[in-house]
Amino acid sequence: MKTTPLKGMKDILPREQRIRDYVQGEILKTYRAAGFERISTPIMEDMENLDKSDGGDNLNLIFKVLKRGDKLEKALASGSEKELSDMGLRYDLTLPLSRYYAANREQLPAPFKVIQTDRVYRAERPQKGRLREFVQCDIDILGDESPNAEVELIDVTARALLAIGFSDFTVHINDRRLLRGMLESFGFAPQALDTVCVTFDKLDKVGPQGVAAELEEKAMPAAAVQALEAFLEKGAFSLDDVSALCADKSLGGSVRYVLDTVGRLSGGRYAVEYTPSLVRGQGYYTGMVFEVTCAAFSGAVAGGGRYDDMVGKFLGQKVPAVGFSIGFERICSILLDQGYAVPDEKPRLALLYGADADFADVLQKAEALRGEYAVTVLAAAKKVGKQLDRLQQSGCAAACFYEKYPEIKPLGENA
Amino acid sequence: MKTTPLKGMKDILPREQRIRDYVQGEILKTYRAAGFERISTPIMEDMENLDKSDGGDNLNLIFKVLKRGDKLEKALASGSEKELSDMGLRYDLTLPLSRYYAANREQLPAPFKVIQTDRVYRAERPQKGRLREFVQCDIDILGDESPNAEVELIDVTARALLAIGFSDFTVHINDRRLLRGMLESFGFAPQALDTVCVTFDKLDKVGPQGVAAELEEKAMPAAAVQALEAFLEKGAFSLDDVSALCADKSLGGSVRYVLDTVGRLSGGRYAVEYTPSLVRGQGYYTGMVFEVTCAAFSGAVAGGGRYDDMVGKFLGQKVPAVGFSIGFERICSILLDQGYAVPDEKPRLALLYGADADFADVLQKAEALRGEYAVTVLAAAKKVGKQLDRLQQSGCAAACFYEKYPEIKPLGENA
Repeated sequence: MKTTPLKGMKDILPREQRIRDYVQGEILKTYRAAGFERISTPIMEDMENLDKSDGGDNLNLIFKVLKRGDKLEKALASGSEKELSDMGLRYDLTLPLSRYYAANREQLPAPFKVIQTDRVYRAERPQKGRLREFVQCDIDILGDESPNAEVELIDVTARALLAIGFSDFTVHINDRRLLRGMLESFGFAPQALDTVCVTFDKLDKVGPQGVAAELEEKAMPAAAVQALEAFLEKGAFSLDDVSALCADKSLGGSVRYVLDTVGRLSGGRYAVEYTPSLVRGQGYYTGMVFEVTCAAFSGAVAGGGRYDDMVGKFLGQKVPAVGFSIGFERICSILLDQGYAVPDEKPRLALLYGADADFADVLQKAEALRGEYAVTVLAAAKKVGKQLDRLQQSGCAAACFYEKYPEIKPLGENA
Repeated sequence: MKTTPLKGMKDILPREQRIRDYVQGEILKTYRAAGFERISTPIMEDMENLDKSDGGDNLNLIFKVLKRGDKLEKALASGSEKELSDMGLRYDLTLPLSRYYAANREQLPAPFKVIQTDRVYRAERPQKGRLREFVQCDIDILGDESPNAEVELIDVTARALLAIGFSDFTVHINDRRLLRGMLESFGFAPQALDTVCVTFDKLDKVGPQGVAAELEEKAMPAAAVQALEAFLEKGAFSLDDVSALCADKSLGGSVRYVLDTVGRLSGGRYAVEYTPSLVRGQGYYTGMVFEVTCAAFSGAVAGGGRYDDMVGKFLGQKVPAVGFSIGFERICSILLDQGYAVPDEKPRLALLYGADADFADVLQKAEALRGEYAVTVLAAAKKVGKQLDRLQQSGCAAACFYEKYPEIKPLGENA
């Protein structure tokens, strides 16, 4: 039998698990203090729901669950691959939340401020840093169309990051509508905007000429590509520059409002900026999008945006919604690499007992020590010196021999 | 699109989630104080591992994950149903733990005292109280063959149950080897013992005659069935009675030791008894088995046993192991039905703000109130009286109007 975990999935060792539990606990504490309430949904969803969810590339990465019994026989007889499965593992927490809200809204407050922290699945090609099973920590506000929802999500997420010791990070903000308005003004067709955005997303990496070259490859209208390149070549472009190009002049206003309000809330503890090239991958975003980057690490540590059309797909009635997701795996792996020590843990003590000890009494003495220590009860080994060395290496701070109780022996540098 | 969760799975509403998080937190606190360390494993396992895992009936309830791309094409071409999947969702946490231990043992302490609390999957026929996705809370000790491991697991599990407010429960103990020894003494063949045990498990429900009738239906030797029935008809039978029937006279001794030691540790807070008809469903148990029942509720709230052969299947070398699993879903559903209120929560306060409010300042005032309250920030509704009523109904204890800050208005009976 195979001992390694499946490709792209991992076993979590005790030290990493301690960090994960601590980080999740701190994030939950911050979110709950802000009046957000936690829920859970099943990890499986109806395949039809998943297929219609506008999840972009993620739709190609869904793990499908095989039908069973008679339903499977029928599916095999039909010869259609699609018939083999009617359930899949969720690729994010936004689609299940939208379904959940539609199903349970009568019992939920309005607006609904919600926490989800749970596992999601994507059949990614395995590579460093890409997992097929990973945890997301999301907060969402459903039923609030005002940009105050964006402000609050950014404020609370930033405070959660500060609480787990992150600093020196930047919140990037853009608006999909602003981006599309600008691109339309250069002459790109509305139906081409999605693919133009994918290229535009690479501006920071490939520069204006690189963007133009790729758009030419994609056979976009030469005039539009030239107009865009000329605009980009002028150098840094501001929210006002972009806003002026859009048919709807009010769009820039709400981005400006979020930038200014979050800027005041940050109190200089983190930066907030308009990032015109920010796109975000998911197809379901309809308005503002945001992302958090950290100077010390490449890639984003959190991301989110507004998705006003998703709940409506279930409910037949529009419900404004906005969400922000912390990249839990990334944060934990950064902390693990840094040798992060979880604060506030009780020191660990091993209570060692000999062969003749009265075991009920051993456990009672262990319980008496638990006010001050996390106490592990262990049979004393024959080579007790080696046993103490191993205990010290594994992070044990002290030992107590049952026969010498309550005498406590500190263990080396962990003491 | 469908709004209900998939069959046999459920959406967790905020009130139930608060109970679940609280119960899990208390259980983890008790387990950690006893020096157990939490780990996690992926929810998917290799199908071959699952198939060979001695999981009894659960092996028929595995959700299989469909292969993808070329592998799926090949599988379809082969015409073999079995080829369609090489991964499945775990049906318990014991098989993944055994694989994990085999893979990571060099980095784990010996003995390894481990916590798992996580989701498992079984494609059960949906019915009340039977979920297809549910959480188990397990502790296990690997690498300890002494019955002190059983004693410690029972002691710690009982303390976790007491910590979440359960009392008036009974820990039932039996030993598979004792049961098999007794049945062999009546003349049942070794290879028939598994099916005899399944029938014997029903003794409490159907009585000695019912057991005999079912064994006759199963075409067991008449002499063996009669000998068993005669023994059972004598009425209450003790550990000594059963032990005397076994070829190995030492078997009763370790059960007696566990009964006595746990009895002393219980201090009368719960009962411990020998239950000769206790079998437990899993095929992988090799020695003692245990179960916790609670006078006020039918069915078990926790169960476990020794499984000394499971890790060896991965490692090729025997590793003694014993585990105890709390029926998390059952406990939470009992508490939910009882209208359980989670203790120690901060009272909730709604901070309501008018249309002209400075939102950055609103959020800063909310933060100032968070020492004492869990504060939700909300735009004041036009009909603010109705809004306050709804807030009160949802459990909010107080409200504060931003414009009148820091004046706090208690809300009805929640205040």
